[in-house]
Amino acid sequence: MTRISILYPNKKGSRFDFRYYVETHMPMSIRLLSAHPGFRSVSVERGVGGAAPGSEPAYLAMCHFLFASIEDFMAAFMPNADTLQGDIPRYTDIEPVIQFNEVLISR
Amino acid sequence: MTRISILYPNKKGSRFDFRYYVETHMPMSIRLLSAHPGFRSVSVERGVGGAAPGSEPAYLAMCHFLFASIEDFMAAFMPNADTLQGDIPRYTDIEPVIQFNEVLISR
Repeated sequence: MTRISILYPNKKGSRFDFRYYVETHMPMSIRLLSAHPGFRSVSVERGVGGAAPGSEPAYLAMCHFLFASIEDFMAAFMPNADTLQGDIPRYTDIEPVIQFNEVLISR
Repeated sequence: MTRISILYPNKKGSRFDFRYYVETHMPMSIRLLSAHPGFRSVSVERGVGGAAPGSEPAYLAMCHFLFASIEDFMAAFMPNADTLQGDIPRYTDIEPVIQFNEVLISR
């Protein structure tokens, strides 16, 4: 199983429209990507704080897609890459950190 | 729902013993924290690459705990904080990025 994590760094002075992200971008993204049979699950999250009490979160938002494999994710994503990436400027000017992860333990 | 993310930055020259982490540290951590009724799920992952083909992942490892609330996580974690934090030097010298997230979409 592969998790694809998209993390938006909490940068001072940056723009992030949570309403558009949660009500428009992510529903579109989930609709397009979950149509692939390799889709397993998705979680969309808002950073609320760091480990130290009262500290800022390192990331404003996180999104994690779980797919059966990297190949399945790529097959789901590539036909929709232009649509999804082209929509990003509508809610943020932050360049996300994106990484692929192999799931070792899940319960 | 609250997700607690523990991210280990991929730093050159750092030490990370995946075998100890996956076979000893995380099973102990899951055993201790999942005993709390607010525990929902956990995912332990190894970073395999970034968005650009052949690029390094930003994080060597990620661990995400899902709890019913931050309060539930803290109630589960605090009695075990010394045990769990004291075990970290056994597998890494990397200081993890830790953050609390509010889950906005889950499916």
